[in-house]
Amino acid sequence: MRRYGIIGTGAIGGYYGGRLQRAGYDVHFLARSDYAVIQTQGLRIDSVFGDFVLPQVQVYEDPRQMPPCDVVVVALKATQNDQLTHILPPLLGEKTILVLLQNGLGVEPELAAQFPQTTILGGLCFVCANKVGPGHIRHLDYEAIALAQYGPHYAPQGITPILEAIAADFTAAGIEIHPKPHLMQSRWEKLVWNIPYNGLSVVLNAQTDQLMANPATRTLVEELMGEVAQGAAACGCEITPAVIAHMIAHTEAMTPYLTSMKLDYDRRQPLEVEAIVGNPLRFAHNGGVILPKITMLHQQLQFLNTANLHNPTPPLYG
Amino acid sequence: MRRYGIIGTGAIGGYYGGRLQRAGYDVHFLARSDYAVIQTQGLRIDSVFGDFVLPQVQVYEDPRQMPPCDVVVVALKATQNDQLTHILPPLLGEKTILVLLQNGLGVEPELAAQFPQTTILGGLCFVCANKVGPGHIRHLDYEAIALAQYGPHYAPQGITPILEAIAADFTAAGIEIHPKPHLMQSRWEKLVWNIPYNGLSVVLNAQTDQLMANPATRTLVEELMGEVAQGAAACGCEITPAVIAHMIAHTEAMTPYLTSMKLDYDRRQPLEVEAIVGNPLRFAHNGGVILPKITMLHQQLQFLNTANLHNPTPPLYG
Repeated sequence: MRRYGIIGTGAIGGYYGGRLQRAGYDVHFLARSDYAVIQTQGLRIDSVFGDFVLPQVQVYEDPRQMPPCDVVVVALKATQNDQLTHILPPLLGEKTILVLLQNGLGVEPELAAQFPQTTILGGLCFVCANKVGPGHIRHLDYEAIALAQYGPHYAPQGITPILEAIAADFTAAGIEIHPKPHLMQSRWEKLVWNIPYNGLSVVLNAQTDQLMANPATRTLVEELMGEVAQGAAACGCEITPAVIAHMIAHTEAMTPYLTSMKLDYDRRQPLEVEAIVGNPLRFAHNGGVILPKITMLHQQLQFLNTANLHNPTPPLYG
Repeated sequence: MRRYGIIGTGAIGGYYGGRLQRAGYDVHFLARSDYAVIQTQGLRIDSVFGDFVLPQVQVYEDPRQMPPCDVVVVALKATQNDQLTHILPPLLGEKTILVLLQNGLGVEPELAAQFPQTTILGGLCFVCANKVGPGHIRHLDYEAIALAQYGPHYAPQGITPILEAIAADFTAAGIEIHPKPHLMQSRWEKLVWNIPYNGLSVVLNAQTDQLMANPATRTLVEELMGEVAQGAAACGCEITPAVIAHMIAHTEAMTPYLTSMKLDYDRRQPLEVEAIVGNPLRFAHNGGVILPKITMLHQQLQFLNTANLHNPTPPLYG
């Protein structure tokens, strides 16, 4: 049985890592602010698929005390990826596989440049989960992961044996997982949702249902999705109108939801502006396409992210 | 000496109407919520060009009690123009001249359709003034008016005798006024400033200096101004790059400033979204031009305007 290292024990790392441990895998968690609580009380997962508690977990404050792992799951915010230079080396063996459970585009090439010998998979999580306290995760809805292997410049790698092996572990842990042949395609498919809803929820201080109920922003959401499709096409990927229609219908059926970026904003955490918006714009631009509305969203988010981090007062709305 | 009617005794109506009365003109003010205070205490103008008080003013709560006027100055927010159908008839004589001191585009054609016999002038105010209490105006900076005569479909009318006569009155009252030959051109010139700064100040909860200090929003402001220039060109008007450069430099030199739309937003008043953003988009569209970033700004402002008016709680930031 593979040994898993989980980097970041927030909503994503806590939920999926907790499920893996519960299924019997040897899981090692890196935590920072929550270390002491998890060390003494373990992890508590309140899940729509059944609550569970892990009274004892192998948790670390310092990555240098962690053992080499077969699989290292990176569940940090993409804004924290500069820390991986120091975090990862103690955990990497010769055959360690890195699994990046992060939103956005362009996160793998940076890590591939730093760790050229390491196989990298990228995963997109379709999950509503929040950390509601130290070591305490609330899982509200969904849990699927789209997982694909990274290759240089996002060249499609197909369904590789490594990908199938990792997917089998997650399946054994009861996690819905979908192996995918083309990581960049999967990343663009998630950006169709993330760019309009994460972006507008912050700029307009709004939940997904409010954005859909107003005809002006509903149209804007569709137009932003159309621009994401143009960006994908510039990268050789395809977002069909049917995918956009499905996203719209799906979101209308969803529980009103504050996006991850809005939660970060309200907590005055750095926003994943570059991973989710800036990098896709740059990939599209390299493919010869300018996306005016996503560019404007990027400019607005840069402003709000800076203002939010430099404003000494707590958030006054939300 | 011409008799003036002032419709709306807020910052604009109070300031310019007060100056006209102080210069000896026969001025009649329509006020609503501030009627009783103005009736008993008059008007108080704290101005960078010299404070003054008018202890007695001819103020009315009901337009039906007002006399016919030679000139009726409309100083309402454009969002209140539907009230003019009922307000104006008692004030209009055969030769009454309407002067619209309002921002945006498309306000004159609506009034011209309702009052086809009335000469209409349009004025753009370059002034920083706020109402700080009932009958109490604070004038912070500038006061110039660009004034032009309206003709069907904004056809240029040149410098007409009527325009010169009204401008002479304002000049006699010590108000800086610039007669202009082409109203639509003047309106687009003001929109170069109003669209980016009014719009972004609301969407991003920001002052003009903050928008200019952040490289992302500074670029966005310039791009929005570039789209305004495209819209103007679609209407046969011209905004040169020099005008845009001047606006940018001028705004950087200005005192940090909350725009009129931001003040309306913080007071939970209806925003002049259609006059300032929606109508210019429609005029540009009729000229065959789509302006993607101004369209997005319009969509965002529609959302925020609706949310702001329907939210029962007071504004929690600002």
